[in-house]
Amino acid sequence: MDEAATAGDGDLRLGDRARIEDLFTAYAYHFDRNEPADVAALFTADAIVDYGPEMATLTGRQAIATGVAAGLRDIFVATSHHISNVAVDFLDGSSARAVAYVHAWHRYRDDSPDGLLWAQYHVTARREGTAWRFAEMTLKAAGTSNFHRSEMHPIGRRTS
Amino acid sequence: MDEAATAGDGDLRLGDRARIEDLFTAYAYHFDRNEPADVAALFTADAIVDYGPEMATLTGRQAIATGVAAGLRDIFVATSHHISNVAVDFLDGSSARAVAYVHAWHRYRDDSPDGLLWAQYHVTARREGTAWRFAEMTLKAAGTSNFHRSEMHPIGRRTS
Amino acid sequence: MDEAATAGDGDLRLGDRARIEDLFTAYAYHFDRNEPADVAALFTADAIVDYGPEMATLTGRQAIATGVAAGLRDIFVATSHHISNVAVDFLDGSSARAVAYVHAWHRYRDDSPDGLLWAQYHVTARREGTAWRFAEMTLKAAGTSNFHRSEMHPIGRRTS
Repeated sequence: MDEAATAGDGDLRLGDRARIEDLFTAYAYHFDRNEPADVAALFTADAIVDYGPEMATLTGRQAIATGVAAGLRDIFVATSHHISNVAVDFLDGSSARAVAYVHAWHRYRDDSPDGLLWAQYHVTARREGTAWRFAEMTLKAAGTSNFHRSEMHPIGRRTS
Repeated sequence: MDEAATAGDGDLRLGDRARIEDLFTAYAYHFDRNEPADVAALFTADAIVDYGPEMATLTGRQAIATGVAAGLRDIFVATSHHISNVAVDFLDGSSARAVAYVHAWHRYRDDSPDGLLWAQYHVTARREGTAWRFAEMTLKAAGTSNFHRSEMHPIGRRTS
Repeated sequence: MDEAATAGDGDLRLGDRARIEDLFTAYAYHFDRNEPADVAALFTADAIVDYGPEMATLTGRQAIATGVAAGLRDIFVATSHHISNVAVDFLDGSSARAVAYVHAWHRYRDDSPDGLLWAQYHVTARREGTAWRFAEMTLKAAGTSNFHRSEMHPIGRRTS
């Protein structure tokens, strides 16, 4: 491998990138298995989660655990969160901004038709020791179908 | 790259991880192109595939080729398997457990409405020389819509 | 890391692979945000894009920018392109063939029902300096639902 290739790959930080991808994967896996404590453990102690204008912002790992648990218990019988399009932008050695797309399927407790979501997670991630965790997460929706919430943060599509 | 980063990345085994991701990608590609022999070649000679309680477990590469070929020929006009959320857990130098999410679309021979699936492949993979192959594959469904099978292995969502 | 592992991973070209994955991710992101100039900048100056038999082939970065801008302005209110299953096959040090799956959701200006697409981008990519760009892109559809185009390039599913 020549110098240029080495420099280029080091710049990509493939290891940290993989760990941040794994963070999204673990988030979906534990969410879909109704494991709110495991979801919350993926966030920093002071993390902030904004799922949209119809839901109070969750601040801190305990609030995230409680808020996620309530949704998983009261609203959904089943969910499936399919993560893709992960883009990572490192800010420094221990923090990054990232965007991941999510296509999510939801079955409701109240027998409403299944809800579909095509959206994006916009996050900041922070390295604490060897573990990366989410420090901020905002959900922005491109579109929905039979979704249980009608107002969502927009993805910022240019309208002109 | 400092020592810690090198150690951390080696631990991630990015090369083997990429090869296992490629295995899922090849599985979907050949399945959707109706190439059952190419699908079967991704499995070890003694592999076991469990697509759900309504279908006999397929044991051995030949049974997998035959079973997949029958489904592709008799049930589907077209399919598309979208793989994501690949999580790999290495057991030793030449074996790993992995989970991949799949969103799959199916068009049926009998003009039933298109079937949709939101599911997970739970696999073990084994390295044979330089190639990784599937040794076990179990399909677990989070949800379906107009799917040709009504009973599926569950993903194990906590109900309390 | 032993010699064999190093050789194997070098062969995978994980850095270039990540850059080509990033190219698809950037394509979806800018498309969905209605940023046609940013979409076009991901293509080589002489690139060729074939979205299907009902649309004229776009040749050159300027034609791509103009063609994409027209669609984004006239047809869609919103879109979301979920990329997965990226397979990369390097031809030499600075060119590669790649396939990526896409599940795409479309909301139309004319109030037609939302259109869904399950498809594949077949591309060639070329390295220009440190940047990889698309030199050719062909969209091949496995299936659609309420889509605004009825005829698409097929994925090449074997019919016998």
